[in-house]
Amino acid sequence: MNAPHESQNLRCPIPDEMIADLQAKFGDRFSRSNAVRDHHGKDESPFPSMLPDGVVFAESTDEVVAVVKLCDKHGVPLIPYGSGSSLEGHILAVQGGISLDLTRMNKIVALHAEDQTVTVQAGLTRKQLNEQIRDTGLFFPIDPGADASLGGMSATRASGTNAVRYGTMRENVVSLTVVTAQGKVIRTSRRARKSSAGYDLTRLFVGSEGTLGVITEVTVKLYPQPEAVSAAVCNFPSVHDAVECVIQTIQLGVPVARVELMNAEAVRASNAYSKLTLRETPLLLFEFHGSEASVKEQAQTVQDIAKDCGGMDFEWAERPEDRNRLWTARHNAYFAGLQLRPGCKASTTDVCVPISRLAECIDAATEALSKVSFPSTIVGHVGDGNFHVLMLLDPDSEAEWAESERLNYQLVMQAIQADGTCTGEHGIGLHKKQFMVHEHGEDALDLMRSLKLAFDPNNILNPGKVLDPRM
Amino acid sequence: MNAPHESQNLRCPIPDEMIADLQAKFGDRFSRSNAVRDHHGKDESPFPSMLPDGVVFAESTDEVVAVVKLCDKHGVPLIPYGSGSSLEGHILAVQGGISLDLTRMNKIVALHAEDQTVTVQAGLTRKQLNEQIRDTGLFFPIDPGADASLGGMSATRASGTNAVRYGTMRENVVSLTVVTAQGKVIRTSRRARKSSAGYDLTRLFVGSEGTLGVITEVTVKLYPQPEAVSAAVCNFPSVHDAVECVIQTIQLGVPVARVELMNAEAVRASNAYSKLTLRETPLLLFEFHGSEASVKEQAQTVQDIAKDCGGMDFEWAERPEDRNRLWTARHNAYFAGLQLRPGCKASTTDVCVPISRLAECIDAATEALSKVSFPSTIVGHVGDGNFHVLMLLDPDSEAEWAESERLNYQLVMQAIQADGTCTGEHGIGLHKKQFMVHEHGEDALDLMRSLKLAFDPNNILNPGKVLDPRM
Repeated sequence: MNAPHESQNLRCPIPDEMIADLQAKFGDRFSRSNAVRDHHGKDESPFPSMLPDGVVFAESTDEVVAVVKLCDKHGVPLIPYGSGSSLEGHILAVQGGISLDLTRMNKIVALHAEDQTVTVQAGLTRKQLNEQIRDTGLFFPIDPGADASLGGMSATRASGTNAVRYGTMRENVVSLTVVTAQGKVIRTSRRARKSSAGYDLTRLFVGSEGTLGVITEVTVKLYPQPEAVSAAVCNFPSVHDAVECVIQTIQLGVPVARVELMNAEAVRASNAYSKLTLRETPLLLFEFHGSEASVKEQAQTVQDIAKDCGGMDFEWAERPEDRNRLWTARHNAYFAGLQLRPGCKASTTDVCVPISRLAECIDAATEALSKVSFPSTIVGHVGDGNFHVLMLLDPDSEAEWAESERLNYQLVMQAIQADGTCTGEHGIGLHKKQFMVHEHGEDALDLMRSLKLAFDPNNILNPGKVLDPRM
Repeated sequence: MNAPHESQNLRCPIPDEMIADLQAKFGDRFSRSNAVRDHHGKDESPFPSMLPDGVVFAESTDEVVAVVKLCDKHGVPLIPYGSGSSLEGHILAVQGGISLDLTRMNKIVALHAEDQTVTVQAGLTRKQLNEQIRDTGLFFPIDPGADASLGGMSATRASGTNAVRYGTMRENVVSLTVVTAQGKVIRTSRRARKSSAGYDLTRLFVGSEGTLGVITEVTVKLYPQPEAVSAAVCNFPSVHDAVECVIQTIQLGVPVARVELMNAEAVRASNAYSKLTLRETPLLLFEFHGSEASVKEQAQTVQDIAKDCGGMDFEWAERPEDRNRLWTARHNAYFAGLQLRPGCKASTTDVCVPISRLAECIDAATEALSKVSFPSTIVGHVGDGNFHVLMLLDPDSEAEWAESERLNYQLVMQAIQADGTCTGEHGIGLHKKQFMVHEHGEDALDLMRSLKLAFDPNNILNPGKVLDPRM
């Protein structure tokens, strides 16, 4: 597959002096072994591996500072590494350099249950967090499927199934501790719920994909575990009907916690992979959070809408184990999809459009998929106007890759024409850089470039991602 | 009162060539009359007037571009002007220059009711907006009291009484059209509900106070008008008890739409000014939005909490006219306060702290106010941890001004120690610049300065606000 070829030309190996410094400081937490480099040089994206020259396992913000300063001094690229679950090539070492593994920074720094915030080290994953705070009666809702790290989720502005009710990382990060390209440690905001004190550095680092600074601590909002939760499946005769139901639900302001679309192929894959017996037509997976009364009210409203849209009766999953089975199946939709074509490599689209334009965009995707030569599924966080086409490709076929890229291009350009975005939640990484100019225009990109230059003048922070320098 | 004295030294008058260009282009929409300059050289802050050298009344983004380019070419300061309701000196022309009046840019550009967004010109005020969209069944909830322009509200990251439920301008601005310091027109984001496509320029311009670019159009979220609304007043024996009730309400996750604190002095002032008969003890003003059932449920929960905290029975205002009377009184609390001391000048504090620290901070403010020589009131958007002390000062008394500044300093430093902010919603302007380093630290401020330099290298955009250059 056609990976960026800049890698070989721009590669700058680590100078011997820096290697000696890293060995002295980190001992065996600095590795140049092939196995460790290989592990840090690939992600869930369709790109081939691109290995860093070395990997440092940091255990504190101070250690991150030390690594950043060495990289800055020697002009060596630095790539923060969380859980490696990127779908767009964020952590690939296109210019070599150091992969800075933060997985050992996985402690809770401060839990403020009474303020419903928690501060964690960047390497803690969302599941680890929720396990550790379960007894507080609070939970962290953002759920991108993968068990991503909080640092990685901040860096890609992640969201997922609960975003329709609880927002994305944009709304849920309160404050960040960041090591700048110059090795300074800043905190981007204080812990008050709101502030008008100067430029919003928090939101600037959220979604910056490791290119403006290294996030080492994250303070996020927590929410009371809802008094009542119920989940339901509703089958529809067509994807279009299901999408219509979602649009009306959102427009009516029903505060659904999750509403997920799966097309018939995605259901079939999940049945096979997760041993379920869901009816194999397009379906919506709903979850309602609130008081007992409010959950009942929401569910009734949505059932009425669904019926109007041709939906069948709701099938309920009220017991936690049934809900878990259902959501595990949804979360495994990616891996279930992969099993539709054993040995395949997946490429995923990620457009997000205003809800009024969602039906036409999904219809166009469905129509286009009926003509391609590879298997595929469609799943979507449709309450946000966000959906994914999972394209299951023969890893050895240049033709299928080219075909999938053409389809992605077509869907993205249609989304942008509909006032939408090339990426709702996966980020730009390597794969979406080509669309930045279509989405933002050259002048806005110039502002972003000037910002990158101001924050990282030596271009050491995850170079080659998000933006290319102006030609 | 001790206004910044830099103004005289740094003042750069408009060159004759630029005056001629402005006259040619704008005719009588370019004014250098004393009356017009005077109107644009003062706001609701305690600072004395600082007049611009001229005022341009722009009617389109293209006209804004023309003015920005002239200012950039000649190095003349440019100050965007919305409704002049700043409390912190944002629009004062500390270095002279052009005040760019956007009030004639007050049209709705595009209403997308089905997506619950509206795009407006920056000069449209929030009341104008809500009047014009009333028939759609939607409303714009952010309500800072003053009938501010959407551009000004974006520029100061405003919030107000509804923020506890609906968020601030940070959460509610979807996209901005901005004229950069170089006279380029950018749109900061597309209209999808979420995106991970590059740096968050939207959030960067929200709260930038006219120092990074001129906002000319704003796209904001709208919300369905709630099916049911009810409001209630609850009196408490002390401010401390009232605050305890709020803290428990928020911690329980009750989705109150508004919860406002008034201390006894504020109630007294409102009774006199707004001809009300509220019991003159500390009170909370609640508003609940939702379905009939949900509003009942919320109200019952909060009544139970209030009772536990020593609150009296709720007094309900269910008819729209009664609610309006109540909220008008709350909105007029500022002007009501001024009437406590006819002829006075007001200075307002604006700290915001994590909710767990709110009681101690308000207690300290109450204690400190018992010792000062001027009258005062306390009101607060306490659900957000945000409260204001309105200090009513003799405009001729340097001693009172100094005393009020000492009190503000004390409250801000306590808030910052409590992990809070010097300004919850009013912005930095001139008045809070001294606190930026305490709140953010020198290294974060350096990042903000590098950002300002990257976006506005000639320092023409509202110079002297938010940040001072590094000494």
